[in-house]
Amino acid sequence: MAAQIPAVPQLLLDNAVKAALLEDWGRAGDITSQATIPAGATAQAVIAARAPGVLAGLGLAESAFRQTDPAVAFDKLRQDGDGLVAGTIVARMSGPARAILAAERVALNFLGHLSGIATAADGFAREIAHTKAHIVCTRKTTPGLRALEKYAVRCGGGKNHRFGLDDAVLIKDNHVAVAGGVAPAIRAAKEFAGHLVKIEVEVDTLDQLREALGEKPDVVMLDNMTPERLADAVRIADGQVVLEASGGIELNTVRAVAESGVDLISSGWITHSAPVLDLGLDIEIE
Amino acid sequence: MAAQIPAVPQLLLDNAVKAALLEDWGRAGDITSQATIPAGATAQAVIAARAPGVLAGLGLAESAFRQTDPAVAFDKLRQDGDGLVAGTIVARMSGPARAILAAERVALNFLGHLSGIATAADGFAREIAHTKAHIVCTRKTTPGLRALEKYAVRCGGGKNHRFGLDDAVLIKDNHVAVAGGVAPAIRAAKEFAGHLVKIEVEVDTLDQLREALGEKPDVVMLDNMTPERLADAVRIADGQVVLEASGGIELNTVRAVAESGVDLISSGWITHSAPVLDLGLDIEIE
Amino acid sequence: MAAQIPAVPQLLLDNAVKAALLEDWGRAGDITSQATIPAGATAQAVIAARAPGVLAGLGLAESAFRQTDPAVAFDKLRQDGDGLVAGTIVARMSGPARAILAAERVALNFLGHLSGIATAADGFAREIAHTKAHIVCTRKTTPGLRALEKYAVRCGGGKNHRFGLDDAVLIKDNHVAVAGGVAPAIRAAKEFAGHLVKIEVEVDTLDQLREALGEKPDVVMLDNMTPERLADAVRIADGQVVLEASGGIELNTVRAVAESGVDLISSGWITHSAPVLDLGLDIEIE
Amino acid sequence: MAAQIPAVPQLLLDNAVKAALLEDWGRAGDITSQATIPAGATAQAVIAARAPGVLAGLGLAESAFRQTDPAVAFDKLRQDGDGLVAGTIVARMSGPARAILAAERVALNFLGHLSGIATAADGFAREIAHTKAHIVCTRKTTPGLRALEKYAVRCGGGKNHRFGLDDAVLIKDNHVAVAGGVAPAIRAAKEFAGHLVKIEVEVDTLDQLREALGEKPDVVMLDNMTPERLADAVRIADGQVVLEASGGIELNTVRAVAESGVDLISSGWITHSAPVLDLGLDIEIE
Amino acid sequence: MAAQIPAVPQLLLDNAVKAALLEDWGRAGDITSQATIPAGATAQAVIAARAPGVLAGLGLAESAFRQTDPAVAFDKLRQDGDGLVAGTIVARMSGPARAILAAERVALNFLGHLSGIATAADGFAREIAHTKAHIVCTRKTTPGLRALEKYAVRCGGGKNHRFGLDDAVLIKDNHVAVAGGVAPAIRAAKEFAGHLVKIEVEVDTLDQLREALGEKPDVVMLDNMTPERLADAVRIADGQVVLEASGGIELNTVRAVAESGVDLISSGWITHSAPVLDLGLDIEIE
Amino acid sequence: MAAQIPAVPQLLLDNAVKAALLEDWGRAGDITSQATIPAGATAQAVIAARAPGVLAGLGLAESAFRQTDPAVAFDKLRQDGDGLVAGTIVARMSGPARAILAAERVALNFLGHLSGIATAADGFAREIAHTKAHIVCTRKTTPGLRALEKYAVRCGGGKNHRFGLDDAVLIKDNHVAVAGGVAPAIRAAKEFAGHLVKIEVEVDTLDQLREALGEKPDVVMLDNMTPERLADAVRIADGQVVLEASGGIELNTVRAVAESGVDLISSGWITHSAPVLDLGLDIEIE
Repeated sequence: MAAQIPAVPQLLLDNAVKAALLEDWGRAGDITSQATIPAGATAQAVIAARAPGVLAGLGLAESAFRQTDPAVAFDKLRQDGDGLVAGTIVARMSGPARAILAAERVALNFLGHLSGIATAADGFAREIAHTKAHIVCTRKTTPGLRALEKYAVRCGGGKNHRFGLDDAVLIKDNHVAVAGGVAPAIRAAKEFAGHLVKIEVEVDTLDQLREALGEKPDVVMLDNMTPERLADAVRIADGQVVLEASGGIELNTVRAVAESGVDLISSGWITHSAPVLDLGLDIEIE
Repeated sequence: MAAQIPAVPQLLLDNAVKAALLEDWGRAGDITSQATIPAGATAQAVIAARAPGVLAGLGLAESAFRQTDPAVAFDKLRQDGDGLVAGTIVARMSGPARAILAAERVALNFLGHLSGIATAADGFAREIAHTKAHIVCTRKTTPGLRALEKYAVRCGGGKNHRFGLDDAVLIKDNHVAVAGGVAPAIRAAKEFAGHLVKIEVEVDTLDQLREALGEKPDVVMLDNMTPERLADAVRIADGQVVLEASGGIELNTVRAVAESGVDLISSGWITHSAPVLDLGLDIEIE
Repeated sequence: MAAQIPAVPQLLLDNAVKAALLEDWGRAGDITSQATIPAGATAQAVIAARAPGVLAGLGLAESAFRQTDPAVAFDKLRQDGDGLVAGTIVARMSGPARAILAAERVALNFLGHLSGIATAADGFAREIAHTKAHIVCTRKTTPGLRALEKYAVRCGGGKNHRFGLDDAVLIKDNHVAVAGGVAPAIRAAKEFAGHLVKIEVEVDTLDQLREALGEKPDVVMLDNMTPERLADAVRIADGQVVLEASGGIELNTVRAVAESGVDLISSGWITHSAPVLDLGLDIEIE
Repeated sequence: MAAQIPAVPQLLLDNAVKAALLEDWGRAGDITSQATIPAGATAQAVIAARAPGVLAGLGLAESAFRQTDPAVAFDKLRQDGDGLVAGTIVARMSGPARAILAAERVALNFLGHLSGIATAADGFAREIAHTKAHIVCTRKTTPGLRALEKYAVRCGGGKNHRFGLDDAVLIKDNHVAVAGGVAPAIRAAKEFAGHLVKIEVEVDTLDQLREALGEKPDVVMLDNMTPERLADAVRIADGQVVLEASGGIELNTVRAVAESGVDLISSGWITHSAPVLDLGLDIEIE
Repeated sequence: MAAQIPAVPQLLLDNAVKAALLEDWGRAGDITSQATIPAGATAQAVIAARAPGVLAGLGLAESAFRQTDPAVAFDKLRQDGDGLVAGTIVARMSGPARAILAAERVALNFLGHLSGIATAADGFAREIAHTKAHIVCTRKTTPGLRALEKYAVRCGGGKNHRFGLDDAVLIKDNHVAVAGGVAPAIRAAKEFAGHLVKIEVEVDTLDQLREALGEKPDVVMLDNMTPERLADAVRIADGQVVLEASGGIELNTVRAVAESGVDLISSGWITHSAPVLDLGLDIEIE
Repeated sequence: MAAQIPAVPQLLLDNAVKAALLEDWGRAGDITSQATIPAGATAQAVIAARAPGVLAGLGLAESAFRQTDPAVAFDKLRQDGDGLVAGTIVARMSGPARAILAAERVALNFLGHLSGIATAADGFAREIAHTKAHIVCTRKTTPGLRALEKYAVRCGGGKNHRFGLDDAVLIKDNHVAVAGGVAPAIRAAKEFAGHLVKIEVEVDTLDQLREALGEKPDVVMLDNMTPERLADAVRIADGQVVLEASGGIELNTVRAVAESGVDLISSGWITHSAPVLDLGLDIEIE
C-alpha cells in the first residue's frame, strides 16, 4: 500500500527542487517563454506516463511548480508507488503559462529519474514475489540524490541498505584482511559501534560464513555466490542471521538467487543504471 | 584529442565532490574503517575499468581523495575522453588507508556515472562517424549534475545543446501555438533576445520548416521525422540553417538519421538513461 | 513597453534580497526601531523618486518588505522600465512600522542602484534612438549582482552582452595573438563551441575585420575606432555580421558612434559607474 | 599609513571572490580561452592603473587568481591605500595563461569598484584635510558588498559609520516623531542599548540639538544644515558630543561644511555612486 | 517588561531552526512515527515547564512546527521573558501528529537551552536587583548560537556585551603589553576606531585604572578584583567611565561584587555552562 | 585508548569552525588587535587546562587557527580523550600574533564546550566502571552541534544513542498508544524498517517489557524505573535484548542504576547541561 512508503521530509524535497530550478534557470530564466508567451497567459496541463511503470517523485514535481509560482494549482491524481500504464495521468495543473513551462523540465527530470528507479525496483521485486526475499539498494547512487533514490526504491517495493558510511557497519574484504579475519573484524566492530548500529559482514566462502556465525553479526552478505552455493549458505546459517546475496545480480538471474532462500538481494543496477520512465507534460495554453 | 575537451572549472568540481562526500559520510563518517583499520595504516590502490568504455570524471575522483585527506597521492594514468578496455588502470593512489576507503564510493559513483554517459555518447558517435552529423545532449539531465553530465557528453565525442533555459532560445510547439505560428514566434524571439543568444525553432512539418527558413533562425529542430522526411528537410534547407533531428532516436536508428544529412542529432537517452560504466577500486592495505 | 522586459526569476530575486537583509541586520536587527517604536505600531509609507529616471528593481523592494514581515502590504504603482519624474510615487505600503523601517534601506539600496543603471542605459539609448544601434552592457558589473544589473540595463532600453565566460565566445586580442591571427582563432572557436553558442571576435583594424569576415563569425567587435573608421567598417562588413563598437564610449560621444551605422555599442560605464537614482521612503507611523 | 587600515578577514575575502568567480564562470567556465589558448600555455601579466586614484581590493584580486589556479604567482607591488597615477603597476603575476584570463574580469571588477570608492573617499578627504573633520560612509552601499565597500572607504582615508542596523543606534526623524521628541527617544535608546552600543540622534534644528545635548548622546547628526547653521551648532555643542553633518554634501560643498567645525561629514555618494577606477590587466602569453 | 526585549529577526530564527531540523531528520526523517502513526492522525499538544525558570525561544519552537508542516497551529500562551513555574503551559498546538512528533525535539532543544540561559541570567539579576549593576554576557557562547544566546540573556534580564570581535574594541592584557601600556593602547584604539565604536579596556590594578581614566575610554573592565578593590575602583573612577567587573564571578559572589558599586558584571557561566530548563511536550494523538 | 575514538571527518570539523569564525568576526574582524598589535608581530602561545577533565575538540581548535592563517603552527601535545589536570598544556602554537588572537575565542569555545561534555561523560562512566553498563547520550543536544557533541561523549568514554530521527527506530509511549500496544508497535516497525535499522522500544512497566520481549526488539528502554524494578527487568529479559535505563538519572544515582545489571544508561544531562571545562590560552607576543 503506497501510503506506507517512508517519505522524505518536505524541506529536503524543497531544497533539492530549488537547487534544480536554479540550475536550469541560470541567470535569466526561461527566455523563450518570455519572448513568446504573454505574461498574463494561463494554461491547463497534465503530466502523463508514456510507458508503464511505477510512480515516484510526485512531491518533487509539485514543489517545482509551487516554487516557480504559488499561483499554479497542482492536483495529484496518483501517488508515489502507484503502478502506471502508458497514458495514466498522474497530475493536473493550471495557472500562469510561463511558470508551468519554466518548471516543466525540472519536474519531469525528477519524476522520470525516480520513477525509472521505482520501476526497476518493482521489476526485480515482481520476479521474486513468490519468495520471502526482498530487493535492497546500495550506496551506488547518483551523487547528491541518495535520499531521493532510496525513496524511489521504496516506492518500487524495495528495501533500503545503508544510507551512508555512518549509519551501519559493513565489513568488506579489505577490512577483513586488515583485521586478520572475519571473526576479529566483527569483534572489533561490536566493540566500536553503538547499540543502535547494526553490523553486516561480507563473506566470499562458506567457511567465512561459518566463522561469521560464531560472532553473531546482524547480517551476512554472501558475495558472488551461485544459487546452489547460496542455498548451502541458507542451510548453514539456519535462521541465525539475515542473509544478503550480492554481486552482479540481474533481472534474469534474480529469481534463481531468491529461490535459494536468502532474505535480501542487493542491486546497484536499480539505482545507478535504471533508465528513466518516460513521462511527459501536455499543456494547453489559453 | 582529449586535451581539447572543454573542461569544468575546478571550483565547480570541488563543490560537487564536497557535497557528495558529506552526503555519504553523514554525521559520523566511515565507521567501519575506523573500527577495523588502524589509524596509521597506509594503502596502495588502483582504479580500473571492468568493462570497455570512455573515461569521464577523473578530476572528480582526484578531488574526492584530496578533500578527504591531502595526504593521499593520486596519479592519473589516463585522462578524460580516453577509451578504456576491461582492465585499464586509470589512476593509482597511495596514502592513509582510512581516507582511501572513505572516499572510494564517492569517487566511483562520479566516475561510473559520468563515464557511463561518455560511453553512451561515444557509442552514438561511432555509429555516425562516417557522416557529418554530431550527437548533442539535451536538458534531460539528472538534477544537480547538468554541467558535469554535459561535460561527460563532450568526453564521449558529443556536443552540447543548451545548458539551461537562459542561454539560448528554443521555440517549441507550445510557443509556436501561442505566438500564432513559427514565423511570428521567431520574430518575437529575435526582437527579444540579445545579440549573443542563438535561436532554435522546433518544427513538425516541412511546411513549418519552410516558414521557419523565411525568418532565418540559427537552428531548426526537426521533431519526430523519418529519415526520408529528414532528407527532404535537408534538401529544403539547403545549408541555410543548422538542422537538428530529435525525437526518440536510439542507437539502432541513429545511423539512418545521420545519413539523412542533418547536422545534429539530439538524444536524451545518453544523459538520462545511460547505464554506469563499471569501474572498481582495488586496494592493498599495509 | 515595460511588460516585455525579460524578467529575473522570483527565486533569484528573493535569494539576493535575503542575503542583503541579513547583511544589514547583522546579529540583532534594527535595534533603533526596537528601542523607540512600539511593537504594535503600524505605518503607511510611499517610495518616491526624488529625481527623474527609469525604474528598475521594484520586485526586489517588494521582496524586502515581504521577507521582513508578510504582514506588510506592498502595492506597486509603477513597474520596472517606467520613466519617473521627481515626485513620482512608485509604491505604497502599509503594515507594522518596525518591519517597514527594518527593510527600508535594503529596498532602497536595490532600487537606487538598479534604477541608476536603468537611467544610465536609458540616457545612452535616447541619444541614439534615431539610429538602428542598441546599447549593450558588458561583464564589467558589480560582483554578485550581474544578473540584476543586466536586468536593469534591459529596463533602461539596453540589450545584454554575455552573462559570463561560458555563454558565448568572445575572442579578444590576447586570444588572437596566441591563436596566430583572427582567422585561426575563429576557426578554433567554431570547432570548439556548441551549435547554440555564438562567436564574437574583437578587431582593432579594418584588415582584421576583413580577415574575420572570411570566417563568418556572428559578431565583430570594433575596438577603439573613430566614428569615421567605424563607418568604413560598416561599409566593409556590408551586413554580413553584427557589428559592435566598443572602447571608452561616453554619453557625449555615443551619438556619433551610433551614426556610423554599427548595430551595437557597448558600455561598461552604465553598469560599473552609473550613479544611483535618488529614491526615498516617506513614512507615517501611527 | 596604509599598513594601519583595518583589514577584512581573508575568509570573507575568499568567500566574496569565490561567489564572483562562480557567477562569471556559469556552467562551463571560460570557453573562449579553452578554444584558443593551449592548456599548457603560460603567461606574464601586470595589473596597472589607467587613471590616478587610490588602490583598494588587491587582496581580492590575489584571491581570484589563487582560487582559479594555485599555480598562478601573484606579487603585490603596491598595497591598499596607496596613491596611484596612470601607469602605476600594482601587481605582477605569472602562471597558466588560461587561469589568468579566467580570473581577470573578477579581479578587475573588485579592484575597479573598490578603488573607485577609495578614490572618491580620498577626494573628499583631501578637500577637508586642513580641518579636523573626517569623511564617513553610510549604509547606502551595494547589496552584498557592505564590508568591502566600507573597507574601501578606509583605504581612501575615510572613517566608517554603522555597519548595519544592529551595531549602533541611529535615531532618525521618524523615531523621534513616534517617541515623542528627541529627548524621550534618546532616553529610550539608552535604556535599551547595551553598554558597548553608541547612540546617535539626527536633528533638523538647533532647538532639537539643544534638546539632544541634555541627554548626552554619543553623536548628533545635523541634517541638511547650511555651513552657517552648522557653525552655530558647533558653538552650541561646545565639544560635548561628536557632531556629524549630513545631507546631500558633494565634493564642491564639503570644504565649507568641514570649515564649520563639525567632526564628521557623511556621504552616501562615495559608496553608492563613485565611478570605478580604471585598472587594466596586460598579459603576455607564452 | 517582556515586550521590550530586543528581538532577533524572524529570518535568522527560521535559518537556525531549518538547520536544526535537517540535522535531526538526516536522510529519511522520523521513521518511527511513519512506522507507527497513520498519515492522517492528528494531535493536540502542549509545551509545559517542568521546573521554574524564565522562558526564551518560543519563536524558535513555533518556527520548528511551522517549517515541518504549516498545518500545525501553534498558540503562544506565554512570551519570552515570562517567569514560569513547574507546570506552566507556554504553548498549545494542534495538527498532524507526525509533524508534531518530527519537530518536537528540535523545538524543545532550542527552548530548553535558551530558557536555561535566561533562567541563569535571571538568577544572577535577582541577586543584584537592589543595586544599580547589570549582568552582561560575554563571547563565551556556543559556536553557531551567539545571537540566540545573547537574546536569551536579555530575556533573563541581562544586558549584552560585544556580539563579536568587530563591533567594539576590548583591549585586554596582551594588547596592553604589546602597545606599551594602557594609555597608548587606548590612544591607538581611538585613532583606529570609527565614531560609533565604543572602547573598553581591561585593567588588573588600580594604577592601570588611573592610567586608563586619563584617556577617557567608554568602559573599563576590572579583572579579578575583590569587592573591596572594586569599591576602591568605583571611588577612583568617580562616574567618569562605565565600570565592569569580571573574572570568575559566581552566583554566590555576585551580590558582593554588585554592592561595590560597579555598573556591570560579566559572566561567561550564564552562556557557556547554564543547565537547560526542563520543558516537555505532552501530546494526545487522535 | 584515545586512538580508538570514532572521529568526525575533517571536512565537517572545518565547516563548523568556519561558521564559528565568521560568527565571531562579523563584518570587520578583530578590530582591537588591528588597532593595537603591529601587523608583523609574532607570538608563542599555549592552550592549557585550568581544571581537571577530559579533552575533546583539539581538531577544531587546530582548524580555527589554520583557517584564520595557515602561517600559524599548531602542535598537539595531547589528544582527544586524554585526561587533563589543571595546568596540562594541550597544544602549543606560534605564528602571527593577530591571527592567534583572532582565532582564540572560537578555538576555546569549541574546546571548552566539548571537553565539558567529555568530562561529564567521563564522570558518569567512572561511577559505573565496575559494572558492565555504559553511558549513552541522547538527542537532547545543542542545535547544530549534534555530531560534535556525540563525538565528545565518545571521548569521555560514553557510547552514542541515535544520531537523529532517521537512523534507528525508537518507539515511545505516544507511538505505543496509537499503535495499540507495545507488540503491534514493534511489529509495525519491523515491517517498516530496513534490515540495517535497529528497533528500540520504551516501556514503563514490567508487563510492557514482557510484551516487548515476545516481539524481539533489539533494545528495550526502561523508563523511570527504580534500581529494584530495573533489576527485576534484567531478570525477566534474561539476556534476550539490550536493556537501557533512562529518565532523570544523575551522577549520584547512576551507580545504583548500573548495579541493577542494565546494559546502557542514557543521560541527556551530559550533552545539554554539562558545564564547560575551563581551558585558557596564554600568549606571549613578540
